[in-house]
Amino acid sequence: MPLAADVLTRIDSQVAAVRAQLVADRRDFHRYAETGWMEFRTASLIARRLADLGLDVAVGRDVVDEAGRMGLPDPQSLEAAWARALDQGGDPVFLDAVRGGFTGVVGSLHCGDGPCIGIRLDIDALDLQESDAPTHRPSLEGFASVNAGAAHACGHDGHAAVGLGLAQTLIGMRSALRGTVRLIFQPAEEGVRGAKAMVAAGVVEGVDALLGLHLYSGWPTGQVAPGKSNFLATSKFDALLTGAPAHAGGASHRGKNAMLAAATAVLNLHAIPRHADGATRINVGRLVAGQGRNVIPPTAYLALETRGGTSELNDYMVEAVHRVLRAAAAMYACDLEIRPMGEAHSAVSDPALVERIAATVRALPGLSLRDAAPGSGSEDLTTMMRRVQQQGGLASSIGLGADLGGFGHHTAEFDFDEAALPMAVRLLAVTVIDLQSHPWIDGAVP
Amino acid sequence: MPLAADVLTRIDSQVAAVRAQLVADRRDFHRYAETGWMEFRTASLIARRLADLGLDVAVGRDVVDEAGRMGLPDPQSLEAAWARALDQGGDPVFLDAVRGGFTGVVGSLHCGDGPCIGIRLDIDALDLQESDAPTHRPSLEGFASVNAGAAHACGHDGHAAVGLGLAQTLIGMRSALRGTVRLIFQPAEEGVRGAKAMVAAGVVEGVDALLGLHLYSGWPTGQVAPGKSNFLATSKFDALLTGAPAHAGGASHRGKNAMLAAATAVLNLHAIPRHADGATRINVGRLVAGQGRNVIPPTAYLALETRGGTSELNDYMVEAVHRVLRAAAAMYACDLEIRPMGEAHSAVSDPALVERIAATVRALPGLSLRDAAPGSGSEDLTTMMRRVQQQGGLASSIGLGADLGGFGHHTAEFDFDEAALPMAVRLLAVTVIDLQSHPWIDGAVP
Amino acid sequence: MPLAADVLTRIDSQVAAVRAQLVADRRDFHRYAETGWMEFRTASLIARRLADLGLDVAVGRDVVDEAGRMGLPDPQSLEAAWARALDQGGDPVFLDAVRGGFTGVVGSLHCGDGPCIGIRLDIDALDLQESDAPTHRPSLEGFASVNAGAAHACGHDGHAAVGLGLAQTLIGMRSALRGTVRLIFQPAEEGVRGAKAMVAAGVVEGVDALLGLHLYSGWPTGQVAPGKSNFLATSKFDALLTGAPAHAGGASHRGKNAMLAAATAVLNLHAIPRHADGATRINVGRLVAGQGRNVIPPTAYLALETRGGTSELNDYMVEAVHRVLRAAAAMYACDLEIRPMGEAHSAVSDPALVERIAATVRALPGLSLRDAAPGSGSEDLTTMMRRVQQQGGLASSIGLGADLGGFGHHTAEFDFDEAALPMAVRLLAVTVIDLQSHPWIDGAVP
Amino acid sequence: MPLAADVLTRIDSQVAAVRAQLVADRRDFHRYAETGWMEFRTASLIARRLADLGLDVAVGRDVVDEAGRMGLPDPQSLEAAWARALDQGGDPVFLDAVRGGFTGVVGSLHCGDGPCIGIRLDIDALDLQESDAPTHRPSLEGFASVNAGAAHACGHDGHAAVGLGLAQTLIGMRSALRGTVRLIFQPAEEGVRGAKAMVAAGVVEGVDALLGLHLYSGWPTGQVAPGKSNFLATSKFDALLTGAPAHAGGASHRGKNAMLAAATAVLNLHAIPRHADGATRINVGRLVAGQGRNVIPPTAYLALETRGGTSELNDYMVEAVHRVLRAAAAMYACDLEIRPMGEAHSAVSDPALVERIAATVRALPGLSLRDAAPGSGSEDLTTMMRRVQQQGGLASSIGLGADLGGFGHHTAEFDFDEAALPMAVRLLAVTVIDLQSHPWIDGAVP
Repeated sequence: MPLAADVLTRIDSQVAAVRAQLVADRRDFHRYAETGWMEFRTASLIARRLADLGLDVAVGRDVVDEAGRMGLPDPQSLEAAWARALDQGGDPVFLDAVRGGFTGVVGSLHCGDGPCIGIRLDIDALDLQESDAPTHRPSLEGFASVNAGAAHACGHDGHAAVGLGLAQTLIGMRSALRGTVRLIFQPAEEGVRGAKAMVAAGVVEGVDALLGLHLYSGWPTGQVAPGKSNFLATSKFDALLTGAPAHAGGASHRGKNAMLAAATAVLNLHAIPRHADGATRINVGRLVAGQGRNVIPPTAYLALETRGGTSELNDYMVEAVHRVLRAAAAMYACDLEIRPMGEAHSAVSDPALVERIAATVRALPGLSLRDAAPGSGSEDLTTMMRRVQQQGGLASSIGLGADLGGFGHHTAEFDFDEAALPMAVRLLAVTVIDLQSHPWIDGAVP
Repeated sequence: MPLAADVLTRIDSQVAAVRAQLVADRRDFHRYAETGWMEFRTASLIARRLADLGLDVAVGRDVVDEAGRMGLPDPQSLEAAWARALDQGGDPVFLDAVRGGFTGVVGSLHCGDGPCIGIRLDIDALDLQESDAPTHRPSLEGFASVNAGAAHACGHDGHAAVGLGLAQTLIGMRSALRGTVRLIFQPAEEGVRGAKAMVAAGVVEGVDALLGLHLYSGWPTGQVAPGKSNFLATSKFDALLTGAPAHAGGASHRGKNAMLAAATAVLNLHAIPRHADGATRINVGRLVAGQGRNVIPPTAYLALETRGGTSELNDYMVEAVHRVLRAAAAMYACDLEIRPMGEAHSAVSDPALVERIAATVRALPGLSLRDAAPGSGSEDLTTMMRRVQQQGGLASSIGLGADLGGFGHHTAEFDFDEAALPMAVRLLAVTVIDLQSHPWIDGAVP
Repeated sequence: MPLAADVLTRIDSQVAAVRAQLVADRRDFHRYAETGWMEFRTASLIARRLADLGLDVAVGRDVVDEAGRMGLPDPQSLEAAWARALDQGGDPVFLDAVRGGFTGVVGSLHCGDGPCIGIRLDIDALDLQESDAPTHRPSLEGFASVNAGAAHACGHDGHAAVGLGLAQTLIGMRSALRGTVRLIFQPAEEGVRGAKAMVAAGVVEGVDALLGLHLYSGWPTGQVAPGKSNFLATSKFDALLTGAPAHAGGASHRGKNAMLAAATAVLNLHAIPRHADGATRINVGRLVAGQGRNVIPPTAYLALETRGGTSELNDYMVEAVHRVLRAAAAMYACDLEIRPMGEAHSAVSDPALVERIAATVRALPGLSLRDAAPGSGSEDLTTMMRRVQQQGGLASSIGLGADLGGFGHHTAEFDFDEAALPMAVRLLAVTVIDLQSHPWIDGAVP
Repeated sequence: MPLAADVLTRIDSQVAAVRAQLVADRRDFHRYAETGWMEFRTASLIARRLADLGLDVAVGRDVVDEAGRMGLPDPQSLEAAWARALDQGGDPVFLDAVRGGFTGVVGSLHCGDGPCIGIRLDIDALDLQESDAPTHRPSLEGFASVNAGAAHACGHDGHAAVGLGLAQTLIGMRSALRGTVRLIFQPAEEGVRGAKAMVAAGVVEGVDALLGLHLYSGWPTGQVAPGKSNFLATSKFDALLTGAPAHAGGASHRGKNAMLAAATAVLNLHAIPRHADGATRINVGRLVAGQGRNVIPPTAYLALETRGGTSELNDYMVEAVHRVLRAAAAMYACDLEIRPMGEAHSAVSDPALVERIAATVRALPGLSLRDAAPGSGSEDLTTMMRRVQQQGGLASSIGLGADLGGFGHHTAEFDFDEAALPMAVRLLAVTVIDLQSHPWIDGAVP
């Protein structure tokens, strides 16, 4: 990171100015947690703030492809959540734009010629009831989620706040910038449902370098793992089997038993042979079949997912899953509908970009490098990374420790160390400016 | 039926007097349909009327054994239904007695020495939303169920009304009676859940002859099948499998997969070998397993039932079901809880009693005999019949046609011909007086 | 049975003349037991005897349709059995005709105009090692099977002897006969494999009345059940699943696991819903899958059968079996071959014919009537009965008791009372002559 | 390898002297291929040669623990193979010692004080019919296996020859030796059945350093991978399920269906959750169930195996396999017998020993180092390695390339380059002498 000392000093001064706002924003998003495709209040307030700061803002259908959305809630739920967002102080203008489940926002800062640097920030909460234990800081300090069954238990509230703080910081550094910075606020990362629709809408077209930040509550605050990309490719499906009901006591031969089809599918899905080339996973997480006790079950619903060490391994599992489901349906003369509910790829961060970020981390006091632990999760940042790399651009994830010595991601007691928020803004601001000045970034995408 | 002509004339006159009330009562019970164990309004009004007529009334815990109740709703539902009954005009005094799911009523008419004749009448509605089609008479004439999701689609509203009309008729015939008539109003016949608790409370102790009436909308009005007893024995269970959750992507070996246990159980339950000695049936009507898509499913719930041409054949199936469920749980190191939710026996009506009733039918103008079709249903009247027969008493079911040319039992459009109501009262009144006069009934129970 | 007394006397005299021969023949066939499609010695000697008696004899491909044969042994086994038959004294001329598995024989006795009466006699032994216990009469008296793994444990040796005795008796009664008597000696009844091929070759074309006799060791000797026809329709299949092998340790994803397909099929075949209209059965009697312990199993073989109270119920099961097998194969990308190995229909003996035979039984001293017990077996006489009835002819089975107080059919210790042999000849001879004289038999087949 | 030049020269001279004998021995063993526990001729000739060379020879029950033997052939096969060995020129004296399946041999060369170096050589052939293609060198040159169904398709013929050549070489180098050299000729490595019984008999007690050599036909001749130890731990089982037969048509409820139990087991064995800590494998390679088509299957036999990246992971699988099998048996009221048929551990070669051997390889002309490819096989050398390491000794496997550009191990056309045989003797001889002189080997085992 050969950034001039004065530039660094200016960045630090900007970051200091946003420090209190970062915490306030994070806690506001946390308090009004909104789950995937229903981040109406969150997205509208982000868009309002970016617009007020002077960024070019695109929102709603301009940045979210309607058909590309996966795992969308039903229309009633969407409308109820939208009405709630209006009640809870969403921005009325932008609420119109995101209505119906188009909750992506892109803010662009144009500074003349030069490369396009993309920063992806995910903003959705989880379907989870937040802890009300007095030892849980959000409860203690009054910013626990007021929305029942929705909680920011993965740090995306922090990501959203960092995005806003970064926008303000870069505005303050405008004279040191060139090219374009594009801040991409993505909905519905949980369930890996949202990135595909934003990519389909073109939000990463022309991006020379893409960065995706994630906070990790299990790492010491300030430790950074650039290029953490050991994500498993994954596909999420719902399967619906439809047979025919019949009275179990008197006419079972007239039924088409969807529960038996589902039971057969579940057993044989777990028996799909493992692939010798790497990790493969299958899970059927939910099964609901049948109606009354004395009725041949006419319907069955399965929620399942596959994973693979690479996208190819995941494809192998997906193909086998389809074959098993089709055959199980045919065995009981049932109809089958398979609905894609989410997907993410495997991805490899570009080594040159990773090394550049690592150099920055080494140069910045307060940060240190760590290795990313081998992981078993999935992340749809990879869908954006793939598209950027296909165009010739570079992409890297960045993990940042934000330890609160506490509970794991996706638990009711999750929290993180807010001291990481200004660290994240500083690291991203420095990295953006550093990357803008390098010829191998500029023009990476022809 | 060698009943004296004048007695018959008096009965007919009594029945004529209750004709309008029968329809009014039936429609009132229909309008305020209440499902099993929650017949609070129905039972309290029955008890009130019997008491007003001068019968000895026993109600609540005196006639319903607490531990014998099967398939009880949860306490919240019971309380909500009780409060609704209060709102809808239930009798406040008797409502106290039936609170908490003790909705049985027994009214006794004592007339000196002589045999004890029991009449069983079931009073509960079904979990079903009644049709609001304008062609559906209850809708057209304004007595469709006002209680969402509860409907009298099996004629038990008619049975309750017949019981009240019979009480009034017999009071009017008091001088012609001897011994005891015991009117047994039973809750929760649907799901065969209620008879066991009333038998356990002793309601059929000392009964020399037991009659159970059922209206059938599919038979021509006035056709009677005494001794219809081709009921299948049945057992209803809920099974709960409890394993352990784990993250499907990273720690599946830590899970105990209750869904796989359930799928294995479902397949193997259906593979229980059929018994060569007669009909055997198994159905798993409902299966709900798992939580999130990416979590090893820690729980599974199955609702199932067995049937058998005889109680012995049903016992064979029950034993096999237990073995399969236990093994499936053990296979995945899951805990298993099996909850009985209902049961009924096979039963054979006593031929001598059947023939006596048939003679009555042949002698009464407006009624005719029919054979009972071979059936595949179950009925917990059989539980009472068994107990009566064990004591040395006699028992018979009586089917009575009440055709409305319409829809089947247990459908949203079910209705029946109200002209059958006075026919039922007349048939039962004549039969009671006829039976009281016969030595082989008197003293059947030592 | 209004047979003239002198005719009866003549028949009795003829039967007396064959009595010793009946036992000798039965024991000879017993000693050289030959299983289905390999009755080379048996068939050749039957043909020789019929020809010597002066009947018109058709044999081999003339009476067995090549393509209609089911469950044929492999060519090596056929040839080895043929060579053995030559060694064991088969008739060289007729051995040529039956070589390769064409072991049916039809002997016809033409006596001018009149109806055609068919008598079906099955001649094959079972795949079973006969008992060598000293208490087993065939061992004790030296006529136990010398052919390892083949035993007459179902009385077909007796049927064959009865056929020969009947031929000789009828020759002696020629002057009392009219029309045609057709003696049909059928191979491969065990496994219900042979009748179809003889019907396809036309052996029952033009038959006005068909009789099929069976001895039952479990009934008292001399008891007769005409019209025993409570046979279950049945279909026998072999199913072969062919997948692909792979090293289980290192490349399981390259395999196509035929054993998993077979296991899935077995479980789901047993879960085919029972039909409410009557008895249905399924059994998979044999399953062989895989090769080495560490190889993904590339092949699986299943031997299975369905049964039904009627042919329609059996068809319902067959269709379901095909659907399950096809789906199980598809689930594991395996190829599937289904080979028919046997089939028999349900059939109803014609009541008029049954009553006619019953009248004969009632009239003959030494015989008595019995009801046929409800049964659960199958018999491919039904295939011939069906064809005769389709043409307008009449058909009936006849069961005859031949009790030796002993062991059941299809056991190693089976034997029967040889006193039943002359009874059978007498009953059949009387019945043939009786039937020939009745107009409703003559010309039954237009 | 700091061996003195003159010692090396002497070794080379010794190896040159055995070169022709190595090929002759290998071809002799190849021609008379004997499979596991039946290496009667092979073992007796090895023992004879070692004795003639002057080594202390232990054989039979002294080196093979009776109860520790797994996957033993049945007594008839053992006796037939023993008789054949006598016919084919086995040594009569030692044949007595190995009779009954005790086909291990240990030859010890004692040279005063000093460490004990063990060399393990496996000697069994595979159950495989060798190719008779004219392009297959053993066929072309007349040393293809004359024993039907047995073939040296994994190079153990070579290992046995190397052991003999090494014995002769070391005898010639006696003056340069100290301590003890123990040559361990192990039966039944295929199926990982033999090592356990030799370890139980104490053959590696007191060994300071253990070497195990394997030839690999897929590697260029002369390439050496010391420390190849990426073996999967494995357990081999047979499972026998015993239920009860019944007539499928008439009494299926009396049966206990072992095939359904087996099918359930097969599906659920494949559904055992994979362990997150490393590779786990399961395969059911063979399933045979049932008898006749119309009999409820009373028996089922399964041949299966588990594997794990470590012995702990394999233990996890074994425990799950037992649980699934027990539950499947209980589900159908079947008895279960589980027979261990083979087992091997994971093992890690000691790095110091590996590096010492690598140094030797680097120093010897004609040899070169290679990395061992990640593998998926198993090897019961690991059982000996574990025991040596438990005592404080060191152990390492050594892979040596013997490329014939041809077919893989365990195929009918397998062959290898015999030029590798003297290379192997030289490498082992040099390594033995090198190791004997090092203090950290001497006394490794306290």
